Amino acid sequence: MSVIYKRVALIGLGLIAGSMAHALRRGGLTDNIVGTARSAETRDIAREINLCDRVVDTAAEAVEGADLVVLAVPVGAMAAVAKEIAPHLKQGATVTDVGSVKQAVIDAVGPHIPEGVHFVPAHPMAGTEHSGPRSGFAELFENRWCLLVPVDGGDSDAVERLKSLWQAMGANVETMEPEHHDLVCAVTSHAPHLIAYTMVGVADDLRRVTDYEVVKFSAAGFRDFTRIAASDPTMWRDVFLNNKEATLEILGRFTEELFALQRAIRTGDGDLLHDYFTHTRAIRRGIIDAGQDTDAPDFGRGPKR
Amino acid sequence: MSVIYKRVALIGLGLIAGSMAHALRRGGLTDNIVGTARSAETRDIAREINLCDRVVDTAAEAVEGADLVVLAVPVGAMAAVAKEIAPHLKQGATVTDVGSVKQAVIDAVGPHIPEGVHFVPAHPMAGTEHSGPRSGFAELFENRWCLLVPVDGGDSDAVERLKSLWQAMGANVETMEPEHHDLVCAVTSHAPHLIAYTMVGVADDLRRVTDYEVVKFSAAGFRDFTRIAASDPTMWRDVFLNNKEATLEILGRFTEELFALQRAIRTGDGDLLHDYFTHTRAIRRGIIDAGQDTDAPDFGRGPKR
Repeated sequence: MSVIYKRVALIGLGLIAGSMAHALRRGGLTDNIVGTARSAETRDIAREINLCDRVVDTAAEAVEGADLVVLAVPVGAMAAVAKEIAPHLKQGATVTDVGSVKQAVIDAVGPHIPEGVHFVPAHPMAGTEHSGPRSGFAELFENRWCLLVPVDGGDSDAVERLKSLWQAMGANVETMEPEHHDLVCAVTSHAPHLIAYTMVGVADDLRRVTDYEVVKFSAAGFRDFTRIAASDPTMWRDVFLNNKEATLEILGRFTEELFALQRAIRTGDGDLLHDYFTHTRAIRRGIIDAGQDTDAPDFGRGPKR
Repeated sequence: MSVIYKRVALIGLGLIAGSMAHALRRGGLTDNIVGTARSAETRDIAREINLCDRVVDTAAEAVEGADLVVLAVPVGAMAAVAKEIAPHLKQGATVTDVGSVKQAVIDAVGPHIPEGVHFVPAHPMAGTEHSGPRSGFAELFENRWCLLVPVDGGDSDAVERLKSLWQAMGANVETMEPEHHDLVCAVTSHAPHLIAYTMVGVADDLRRVTDYEVVKFSAAGFRDFTRIAASDPTMWRDVFLNNKEATLEILGRFTEELFALQRAIRTGDGDLLHDYFTHTRAIRRGIIDAGQDTDAPDFGRGPKR
């Protein structure tokens, strides 16, 4: 593969930016990666593990001369970073982000982007429950989706170029309108995360069942919730605060549905339960057919792997 | 290993009984496996794949001369099966079950067990989203828990013998009181399953987000819900109907907690959200330390595995 952006600046050095650094190097997609993070500890670790070609102390310094600037900070920090870097951006550069919410990021970042600089919001839909500069790996984006959410009147060449970068890092790319993006993510990601956090919180809060028992017997179903409930707290706080309406709408629908099933349990309506469970089973099949999960028993998680 | 029960009868030939058949043979734990299932199709498949030494048409016939009888049918079918086999049980035999609920099974089966036959309720906490006679595999129980829930005045030798069987199939065994068992399972398994079913149902029910999009972008969190929402509908209907009180209690607590988090989102209380998410993260660590999951990114689910 060949260089797509001569110099890339990564602002924030967590799981996503770290994985990008590995994937960019693996693919030879850039000549130079400059990184920065707010915390001195993160910068020190990034230097220690040689995550970037150069780690600098401020975002303003990082973006100097960069052809691509990646905002990989929590959604709530985007506006401040955009404001800080604005005067230092190179003409013709592209600014993108990796936030899980798009309308709020467009509102926060858009106004700061100077004339002659392209802004192409993006959302790589990939992650693990780990965070920080050591958590990245080059394969994170392989066979995962990256949604590009171009702004009105944006430059189509800049969009195409960013698209080719994500594809070169292994992702499948699709474009979407911001509002629709935020709704799709509320359904497939944000509401499920809040529900998982809640279930794990409840389990931990029960006095009659010990933490030890919850952990010990988790393989029976609970375990699948704990992975997503272990995701980065700051990132997720900002997601919920910045995709408030869509998330609350889906949670409202969820509660309605949960009440109907609870009532069926209470009244002993086995037919309703059976029909419901039969229907949801078919959706799982679709996900396996779409290549977004494996059909291996127990996800191939054996003992001691 | 050596034979623990000379003849084993498996009533019901789904994921659990099928996996037991494979594990029993692998370990040389019995000389003879007789199986039966209510559906003629299941019996035909079992014969075709040679799942048991002999497949018979009725439960009454299957238990003749058996030293261990395993009731591996949905919880709601236990009473009828127990009644049918009772006159045919061999003196000194042990009857066990693999139901996910224990008090209801004890109430349904206990009264039918004749004098001179031992009843040892059990619950292997293992499963996949697959069901039917083809879904079993010998490794299903490895490093998973099997809870024994001995009845009052039960024979301790019969309990020890069943315990050694489960251990020989790879499980860790623990004994528990029925009421506590049902509460622990409501927290770690039954409530999480109902919540997963609900979330998957909601996603499917939304008109503004297509099924196609839900499936396509599922890796962002939703996917983890679909696996458990693909579990056997009949089994789960019976679990909820037979562990009504504990499940509804946990779901009540869940709803309460979910409302608190929804309110925090609505009012923009970022501190509450951040604290909550930080706390739940620690529980995940405990599960990995307990050997009940792997720490591998993305569970080791790569593309095309």
